[in-house]
Amino acid sequence: MSRWEPDAAGRLQRAAMELFAEHGYDRTTTAQIAERAGVTERTFFRHFTDKREVLFDGSGTFEATVLDGVRAAGGDLGPVDVVGAAFVHLAETMFAERHAHAVARNAIISTHPDLQERELIKMSRLGTLVTEALHERRVPEPAASLAAQSGVAVFRVSFARWVGQDGTSLADLLRQSLAELKSLTR
Amino acid sequence: MSRWEPDAAGRLQRAAMELFAEHGYDRTTTAQIAERAGVTERTFFRHFTDKREVLFDGSGTFEATVLDGVRAAGGDLGPVDVVGAAFVHLAETMFAERHAHAVARNAIISTHPDLQERELIKMSRLGTLVTEALHERRVPEPAASLAAQSGVAVFRVSFARWVGQDGTSLADLLRQSLAELKSLTR
Repeated sequence: MSRWEPDAAGRLQRAAMELFAEHGYDRTTTAQIAERAGVTERTFFRHFTDKREVLFDGSGTFEATVLDGVRAAGGDLGPVDVVGAAFVHLAETMFAERHAHAVARNAIISTHPDLQERELIKMSRLGTLVTEALHERRVPEPAASLAAQSGVAVFRVSFARWVGQDGTSLADLLRQSLAELKSLTR
Repeated sequence: MSRWEPDAAGRLQRAAMELFAEHGYDRTTTAQIAERAGVTERTFFRHFTDKREVLFDGSGTFEATVLDGVRAAGGDLGPVDVVGAAFVHLAETMFAERHAHAVARNAIISTHPDLQERELIKMSRLGTLVTEALHERRVPEPAASLAAQSGVAVFRVSFARWVGQDGTSLADLLRQSLAELKSLTR
């Protein structure tokens, strides 16, 4: 085994998803993941704290992409549309080619309460970060919190719809859900 | 000590809140709570699983009150207004006289990540239950999920504002936040 492992993190992630699907999340060990990826267990722990972190590895990029979207949104948009545009940017950047992975990941998370909690914390943290990014755009309170939290609600509903079907893109489902929320509050 | 303890749960809760404020949540034991309430530790465990549950004791009533509000809302209301009315009902029923308690409880929860997680799970569960209650009112998807999750978002923002000030009632803050969300999505 060479000391230099091209895309070891990506290989470990693919190996983990295969093993979770084959044997279940609970019965998969980090040693098995490393073996399937063709690396040592030590290499696994250079990239991930534990097997749970394999499922949440993209969280930093996920947050940064949403925040970039908030900052890049047009100055003429209201705060709810800013948050909507940021999530559409996320969908087009990170989730355009990831439907199968998202469905597999969602199936694992929905059957493990501790993973669901981790996902809730991730979404709650995102709401706080988006609120702060709206403050930087001089959106006052409570508008910033309401727009951020409702935006996260729209994202969660759209994401659940997306993994429950195959055909419509996440970006299009986000646009539909945002339009639906607007018609519901009219 | 008499075997019959009038309002033992209430006395335990008041004793716990006093001790949490005096010594901090981490350094308070169930034995101290029982002693302050004038009951045995065994009586404590007849009412609560652990000291954390003292802070989440009202969760069942909390959920039932919101769901009653959804079911009792006028048939002419749209789903977002149904959820708004249910939270106003909750505020008037459970939180009219509880500002000081809510402020104290919030101060404890906001400094303990495990308590914040418990609160997130409580809110996520509430979103699911409200969605189901809207389905019973024949609200289709995704309108039911969007109205429930946005309603929970409005409640969370209003509650945070309520414990951060003293003067405006939670019911009035909910009405203001709902009106603000409507103007933001116009």
